[in-house]
Amino acid sequence: MAARGARTPRPPPAGGDDGETTPVDNPLDLSALTEITGYPLRRAQLAVFEDFNKRFAPLGLTPAQYSALVAIGDNPGRRQSEIAGALGIQRPNFVAMMDELERRGLAERLRSDADRRSHALALTQRGSELVARARVVQAEQEGAIADILGPQGRDTLVALLRRLAKIE
Amino acid sequence: MAARGARTPRPPPAGGDDGETTPVDNPLDLSALTEITGYPLRRAQLAVFEDFNKRFAPLGLTPAQYSALVAIGDNPGRRQSEIAGALGIQRPNFVAMMDELERRGLAERLRSDADRRSHALALTQRGSELVARARVVQAEQEGAIADILGPQGRDTLVALLRRLAKIE
Repeated sequence: MAARGARTPRPPPAGGDDGETTPVDNPLDLSALTEITGYPLRRAQLAVFEDFNKRFAPLGLTPAQYSALVAIGDNPGRRQSEIAGALGIQRPNFVAMMDELERRGLAERLRSDADRRSHALALTQRGSELVARARVVQAEQEGAIADILGPQGRDTLVALLRRLAKIE
Repeated sequence: MAARGARTPRPPPAGGDDGETTPVDNPLDLSALTEITGYPLRRAQLAVFEDFNKRFAPLGLTPAQYSALVAIGDNPGRRQSEIAGALGIQRPNFVAMMDELERRGLAERLRSDADRRSHALALTQRGSELVARARVVQAEQEGAIADILGPQGRDTLVALLRRLAKIE
């Protein structure tokens, strides 16, 4: 329990409290966080997505856009609600993303003959070409992760995450 | 490659395309996503945080607020920028969170004698009591994760995530 003012704060480094966050020279005790699942899970997700965003910036793709384009490309003709549901994306968010992908000429919503309210999704030629390039970049990122964890460690991590997310 | 209109969309279930996302009866091929790290990592993080939010709703704590309160409680008197940096939270976001925690009487910013610009953080008595209750709820969530993965699987997952996030 932290009694009020029980400890004297350490003097700040140059730049004081107004600077950006800086590396800590005297490490804090974060063991109550690093030993639970949620905290390293979030930190790892942010690190991987930050790395993804850097690698994919030249392609102009976010992680969510990449997953949508891959899912559409591997499942052409499926309905919008099927793709959104399988990816776990809320419908309004997915519709907004499709608006953007369509505007950029990467994917398209086709009228279903069976149900005029339903939209079947497909990649355009341009979208297919971008996905092909993106898969190469993604494989490079996957290699970087395997460099950190080892190939076996990477495989184990992916298997555990799938079980935890119940997406096997 | 998805040729335009190459496949006939399946007829939609009752509710058509206007309903919420629904389970897919004819599974999609998402193997290009589930076999890479980023996708199950994000899905698992969202699942764990959704579960966290349900469990912590009665306490009124988000995952970020919980991690901040635990870090402050275990490191009383440390500067605001130290806590934010260790947690990997951008300073403006952390300041806004501290405003909220202070408003709710859970944590406080104390003037440092060494540097009047610097704020040392501490929990209030009320904050300490809430963290004690929250740790119990957190332990319950951790038990639920161990039920899914097994205790050994949980430990392996946490260790791999720490290596990937470089927070060991």
